[in-house]
Amino acid sequence: MDWEIIHSRLMHLIEGGRRTELRGALMMLNVVDIAQFMQSLDGQSMLMVFRMLPKDVSAEVFAYMEPEQQEQLIGLIGDSEIRALIDEMFLDDAVDTLEELPANVVKRVLANTSPETRALINQFLQYPDYTAGSIMTIEFAEFHSNYTVRQAMDSLRKTGLDKETIYTCYVIDEKRHLMGSVALRHLIMAEDDAPITEVMDSAVISVRTLDDQESVADTVRKYDLIAIPVVDNENRLVGIVTVDDAMDVIEEENTEDLEKMNALLPSEDEYLKTSVWRLAWNRLPWLLFLMITATLTGLIITYYEDVLLNAGAIGVALTACIPILMGTGGNAGSQASTLMIRGLALGEVELKDIPRILWREIRVGVMLGAVLGVVNFLRMIWLNGLDWVTALVVAGSLFLTVIMAKALGCTLPMFAKKINLDPALMASPMITTLVDAGSLAIMFGLASRFLLG
Amino acid sequence: MDWEIIHSRLMHLIEGGRRTELRGALMMLNVVDIAQFMQSLDGQSMLMVFRMLPKDVSAEVFAYMEPEQQEQLIGLIGDSEIRALIDEMFLDDAVDTLEELPANVVKRVLANTSPETRALINQFLQYPDYTAGSIMTIEFAEFHSNYTVRQAMDSLRKTGLDKETIYTCYVIDEKRHLMGSVALRHLIMAEDDAPITEVMDSAVISVRTLDDQESVADTVRKYDLIAIPVVDNENRLVGIVTVDDAMDVIEEENTEDLEKMNALLPSEDEYLKTSVWRLAWNRLPWLLFLMITATLTGLIITYYEDVLLNAGAIGVALTACIPILMGTGGNAGSQASTLMIRGLALGEVELKDIPRILWREIRVGVMLGAVLGVVNFLRMIWLNGLDWVTALVVAGSLFLTVIMAKALGCTLPMFAKKINLDPALMASPMITTLVDAGSLAIMFGLASRFLLG
Repeated sequence: MDWEIIHSRLMHLIEGGRRTELRGALMMLNVVDIAQFMQSLDGQSMLMVFRMLPKDVSAEVFAYMEPEQQEQLIGLIGDSEIRALIDEMFLDDAVDTLEELPANVVKRVLANTSPETRALINQFLQYPDYTAGSIMTIEFAEFHSNYTVRQAMDSLRKTGLDKETIYTCYVIDEKRHLMGSVALRHLIMAEDDAPITEVMDSAVISVRTLDDQESVADTVRKYDLIAIPVVDNENRLVGIVTVDDAMDVIEEENTEDLEKMNALLPSEDEYLKTSVWRLAWNRLPWLLFLMITATLTGLIITYYEDVLLNAGAIGVALTACIPILMGTGGNAGSQASTLMIRGLALGEVELKDIPRILWREIRVGVMLGAVLGVVNFLRMIWLNGLDWVTALVVAGSLFLTVIMAKALGCTLPMFAKKINLDPALMASPMITTLVDAGSLAIMFGLASRFLLG
Repeated sequence: MDWEIIHSRLMHLIEGGRRTELRGALMMLNVVDIAQFMQSLDGQSMLMVFRMLPKDVSAEVFAYMEPEQQEQLIGLIGDSEIRALIDEMFLDDAVDTLEELPANVVKRVLANTSPETRALINQFLQYPDYTAGSIMTIEFAEFHSNYTVRQAMDSLRKTGLDKETIYTCYVIDEKRHLMGSVALRHLIMAEDDAPITEVMDSAVISVRTLDDQESVADTVRKYDLIAIPVVDNENRLVGIVTVDDAMDVIEEENTEDLEKMNALLPSEDEYLKTSVWRLAWNRLPWLLFLMITATLTGLIITYYEDVLLNAGAIGVALTACIPILMGTGGNAGSQASTLMIRGLALGEVELKDIPRILWREIRVGVMLGAVLGVVNFLRMIWLNGLDWVTALVVAGSLFLTVIMAKALGCTLPMFAKKINLDPALMASPMITTLVDAGSLAIMFGLASRFLLG
């Protein structure tokens, strides 16, 4: 990898104390890469590199570092450096950083920021997690509605570098109500004397401070935006969410969905940074709940105890089919529920589609159940040498199980959505557990009727 | 919903034939919403709306329409309108559209485009699916390295509206080699006479035409880019991928991973647009494969046939525990494999971490297995009134099963990655099937040793 070479060259410069060359080499790198490089250094080298970077670059690099290294670095720098750093960072990055740091470090940082910044940070920390307010930034470019294009451009040239983005700017009236958005590409092509209201797009898409971050990110994606304005209840502009933050939200929400779909409590941290205790704790509740649910399936078997005891070899043959029935039923159900959960998340299916979807899934279930039933019937006759009645009972159970699994798999996520639960909870583990019980009830029902009566 | 009101007002204007008002109302909407509105119209109204929009707006709206409606509309408009439409569209959108349309429609469209556009489209269609080349666009802003800032701004003002983005522009030498990138925000703040090479950032991150689209999107996300340049093997600039397309790739890849993780062949289309046959076909291979694998688990039961037949009530008690063992083992394994698959996808864990991860998972397994085993032991003693030896055998099996499940769940995705398979294949269905067999082998092994010997 190129990165290995770059890394060893930089280390070489650090070890040789060749600071001027090092500074030159660092400026050839992207801030994300500088942050990555700094994480591999010991405290003193990290501090040296941090201090040799221009103030604006070091603030950006700091924002990309991991919380552990941020904490380490803050412990090494002086109070005035902390103040300069926090003032230079974008507010949303500063807030993100503070949310990850231990309380005593946060206290020291806040004590060393200007009162205005401190007030803003405290206000931000009050937005509930996972809302637009909690992920927005206040460093956006705004124009008053009486500006001309020239005035707008002048204000951008003056303050533009401190904004998180100036590619979409916003027009507000004297009461800060959001009136429209202006793309910089239109601004630079407009006549200098044109009023800004002529250049702006008044069909501006916005979200509210308390909107869920997932719906904010979905809106950014749907409309292909660079940034989306965040307004309060009176449509006053209070912040923006940029597309790079929206992307991170999408990945975060996808991870959370995956975790919920696999019997895990969602976790915020990377796997290797989570303690073993925490890992176990996040997994226990669902495992316990599903194990207790599975004992109900066990009760079905106990209920048919006499059947099994008196059926001899046929009883064992039926028992040997339990893994096939339960496994196939669970997989068939997860397939359907996965498509529903994803379809609901992406807005491709809606609650009103339930009847149509159910009818589709039943037909799919009939087709798949038929194929799998026939394959299984032939296997039992040819390979296991069972009588055809037993084979037919098992094949029939498989057929009905697959149809039931498809029907449950598509309706349960919808049902969860209907009662305001996350559809992702109705994924493989839950569906599998329910289908397990259903499949055994079907098999023993058919068996006691046709085989052992 | 607001949308319902907007929709009914627009329908009202259409039905009343109030074209001028309709045009005014439409221009208040975002192109994505206009596209959504047009899809609800019959052919003639759709055509009317399409024709009343300005050319550049109608091309953008068309790009956001669904393939069925695009096809319908192309069938309704004349040859010269087709040519104007395709020429107005961004090349990547035109290519995306053509890839979805039936061959005869594509033929008609291509016959009506200019020879240059046709050549470009054909060249694009040749990039393999899922590569940077297949998702890039050629409408980017480039500056020659001898430009001044003024020349660069002039060229942007002249051609900027035809570019997909001008917020990141690229500097090339006379042989089209990529030399650096220029953010528009820096450009508008630079001195007019400064050479462009002074404003540009030479630490530019780029990808190659044949790079996988997923790694392209990940790079855009990692570096928070608005666009990423695509270069050929000789580092010549050939296109860019913008952040909105990268976001779509991320959602697409997440869907694909979810499908693979749940025994589905990946599908390109939305659920409700996929035929029932296709749905069944995408699900059959894995169901069949996993069912056949599950028969091996059945063989384990058959192998212990004598044990079950001679053990009477204990045999039934063991049988009743099969769903609990298999279910809990499968869930415990999926938890571990999910975290591995996601960690590998996001680059949070690597192959070299295997020993460390395995040791973590074994400890997690011991903790969880102990809790679940004890709960199950108490249930069997108190609720089911079983003797303590049987209860101990089942609890011990559960303990060992959970540990085995964790170990398999974390190593198999890593192993898949090692042999260049997609780790997502080693998710719940596969892990569950393997753990099913393992858990029964453990239980019958312990039972025949301690209970029935």
